[in-house]
Amino acid sequence: MTPFLAELIGTMMLIIFGGGVVAGVVLKKSKAENSGWIVITVGWGLAVALAAYSVGSFSGAHLNPALTIALATIGNFPWADVPSYIIAQMIGAFLGGVVVWLHYLPHWQATEDQGAKLAVFSTAPAIRSTFGNLISEIIGTFVLVLGILAIGANKFADGFNPFVVGLLIVAIGVSLGGTTGYAINPARDLGPRIAHAVLPIAGKGSSDWGYAWIPVVGPIIGGVLGGLFYKVFFLA
Amino acid sequence: MTPFLAELIGTMMLIIFGGGVVAGVVLKKSKAENSGWIVITVGWGLAVALAAYSVGSFSGAHLNPALTIALATIGNFPWADVPSYIIAQMIGAFLGGVVVWLHYLPHWQATEDQGAKLAVFSTAPAIRSTFGNLISEIIGTFVLVLGILAIGANKFADGFNPFVVGLLIVAIGVSLGGTTGYAINPARDLGPRIAHAVLPIAGKGSSDWGYAWIPVVGPIIGGVLGGLFYKVFFLA
Amino acid sequence: MTPFLAELIGTMMLIIFGGGVVAGVVLKKSKAENSGWIVITVGWGLAVALAAYSVGSFSGAHLNPALTIALATIGNFPWADVPSYIIAQMIGAFLGGVVVWLHYLPHWQATEDQGAKLAVFSTAPAIRSTFGNLISEIIGTFVLVLGILAIGANKFADGFNPFVVGLLIVAIGVSLGGTTGYAINPARDLGPRIAHAVLPIAGKGSSDWGYAWIPVVGPIIGGVLGGLFYKVFFLA
Amino acid sequence: MTPFLAELIGTMMLIIFGGGVVAGVVLKKSKAENSGWIVITVGWGLAVALAAYSVGSFSGAHLNPALTIALATIGNFPWADVPSYIIAQMIGAFLGGVVVWLHYLPHWQATEDQGAKLAVFSTAPAIRSTFGNLISEIIGTFVLVLGILAIGANKFADGFNPFVVGLLIVAIGVSLGGTTGYAINPARDLGPRIAHAVLPIAGKGSSDWGYAWIPVVGPIIGGVLGGLFYKVFFLA
Repeated sequence: MTPFLAELIGTMMLIIFGGGVVAGVVLKKSKAENSGWIVITVGWGLAVALAAYSVGSFSGAHLNPALTIALATIGNFPWADVPSYIIAQMIGAFLGGVVVWLHYLPHWQATEDQGAKLAVFSTAPAIRSTFGNLISEIIGTFVLVLGILAIGANKFADGFNPFVVGLLIVAIGVSLGGTTGYAINPARDLGPRIAHAVLPIAGKGSSDWGYAWIPVVGPIIGGVLGGLFYKVFFLA
Repeated sequence: MTPFLAELIGTMMLIIFGGGVVAGVVLKKSKAENSGWIVITVGWGLAVALAAYSVGSFSGAHLNPALTIALATIGNFPWADVPSYIIAQMIGAFLGGVVVWLHYLPHWQATEDQGAKLAVFSTAPAIRSTFGNLISEIIGTFVLVLGILAIGANKFADGFNPFVVGLLIVAIGVSLGGTTGYAINPARDLGPRIAHAVLPIAGKGSSDWGYAWIPVVGPIIGGVLGGLFYKVFFLA
Repeated sequence: MTPFLAELIGTMMLIIFGGGVVAGVVLKKSKAENSGWIVITVGWGLAVALAAYSVGSFSGAHLNPALTIALATIGNFPWADVPSYIIAQMIGAFLGGVVVWLHYLPHWQATEDQGAKLAVFSTAPAIRSTFGNLISEIIGTFVLVLGILAIGANKFADGFNPFVVGLLIVAIGVSLGGTTGYAINPARDLGPRIAHAVLPIAGKGSSDWGYAWIPVVGPIIGGVLGGLFYKVFFLA
Repeated sequence: MTPFLAELIGTMMLIIFGGGVVAGVVLKKSKAENSGWIVITVGWGLAVALAAYSVGSFSGAHLNPALTIALATIGNFPWADVPSYIIAQMIGAFLGGVVVWLHYLPHWQATEDQGAKLAVFSTAPAIRSTFGNLISEIIGTFVLVLGILAIGANKFADGFNPFVVGLLIVAIGVSLGGTTGYAINPARDLGPRIAHAVLPIAGKGSSDWGYAWIPVVGPIIGGVLGGLFYKVFFLA
């Protein structure tokens, strides 16, 4: 499998599980309805871990443009491969959104809340505040990239690394996700937002494009800062 | 232990834990009553992992006709052994349902809701829709088989694989289970449904045979598609 | 450390964590009050895993007379050592109950419900039924001993076995604990029950001695049956 | 990276995750609001595990003056390094509190409860009782240090130790945290309490200095006792 296809399929799996768990918790009549933040955060942690187990050996399982850019910035990944990785991640995230829509087909009409329907695809802030939301996405992705690099520096028993990265995602979710819903990944947010915009979702509302730049710009800034912090303090 | 007995005992353990956790959550006066979706999904994940730890070395721990058929379809398992595996899985699933009934003996009479009682044995859709429900079971089992194959391609530390497969089951539960209750396994649904039909369960209702074909046909379709997808994209 | 001291300290740790988690969930004004079945079952799973990590290398970490007797029955443990193991387990369980009482000292007076206070120490059935409760404890301990033996037959990466046994305890809790509260261990139930009887617990009620024989007899029967089942079907 | 910087960054990460999870659960309008004790305890367990994965190879990841002092007491760590470790831990914990404040910036004004705002930074007892609270912190830290030492004596697969220590933190949280909120670490409590006192937190109340000595003195006593207990009984 080419790295391009691996990133595409991996990010699609990420969104099938990640968008799926939000759908399960927020869509009406779902058996998982209102099962809470523990389910959502565990779901996203498993999403990352399982996608990494599935495609990690083919592409390194970035699944996240902010990580790809951060790794390139500190010299751990060739800049020449960055565009194809990001394109693959975006396509995969879009397709993942399509699969989630299909999987929960009868539940869109049963759900009135348009914000809930958008939440299946993309993040929205708990309190709208450009500065506060941007800071949250920066801090969240800083911790993500710093954590991935610091964890990756360990020698682990075979197969244990993606599990620990999954734990990191759960930790970011429970500890730092309460503010903006921890996009911490431009593809995870923008790809499914495009899916939300183009799919014939029953009774859908706005795709909230006014907010869409924050979960793109914040994670890129935070990811690069996290990578640089790691390089300066951990590798010095 | 023969593979036949291993599949039988393994699938029985799967249903003791899996049916048991549903019983604990939905039957009246149970100490686990209303403990929610996180308990159910963790319970099923543990059910698969522990059954796999127990009998994996004897039969490979398929515990699921959809997986057995998918593996045979892509040439990873001999077709000649498929019938005996499926028969063992069906018997084991039936017996598991009997044990759960016995274990929760005083709770059947205490529970009025006939749907809850059936739910201990078999799945029912959140919203009844032949197309939507079939699609859900297909997607869920597609992800199951693709995930098992992709995870299995890794070199893991000894004993880590069944744990990661258990995580996959939790992920499918929280992310894709909200629609049809993720049968994703014909034996898991049909075996206990037969147990529900024949056991003298206090105040039981219909075994909902009209729905019974979907969690059989959907998983078989989805499993085969997942196996083929893996062969085409991951092994190419 | 002698095996006697190891079983004593290990079972004390088991009850500090296990009794502690019940105290946290049921005693009034506790920060963990009403945090539910997932907390209780995870707490007991961790209790077993951590006690096993702590003393496993010294005594094998039985921590449970039903397991000790089952292992002796199938020839995996010398009968001559059974009495000292059981005495150590009983003393440790008693002392664990004392520590939990001390740890939650201000909360006993704050709690009116005498059943809740007893529940910190010992199990009580959800629905009182001699036959049903006995069957539940037999099935639960059958699965416990069968699972421990089947899991133990695997070759695991160093340190992974107690973790998987902890998962087994969580599974038994969520799937089979709803009926009698899964004592599945005579020392775990009887030792703290004696502590409940003798400690000056503010506003305590009956120690429910009429029920006390079931979580002793049931687990012994179930454990021996589980051991024999393993020997007949898994080692044949 | 120097051990000083490692302890500083590690303890900062500990508080970012640990203080963050409390903020997520108790601050108004957070997406994680009221998600309960399971989220808080899992969050703190992950906080310790991930901080240990990140800096463990540089400093041993004490992240806790009570552990540092206990290890020095039993001769496992040079007394000469104790002051610099504790200073680093205190600075890191203070900075972690600052990051959490910044991350949840719009949520402080949205939250009226001054006790909830302090809880993000430092612990407070469920029932105020000098003797009872001190005992709780002593017991909790006794178990912490005993557990870390007993766990550390095992030979684990590479990378498994911090995970098991994280499980120990979850266990202490669910089982022993209900009384005082399990500071079990003077830096974890005092560092962020200073941050609470000096930061311009919208609508903040008292920093509760009258209680502040208990989560400092209790953990030091308990940690030393736990270390001595280990030395006397486990190494004899």
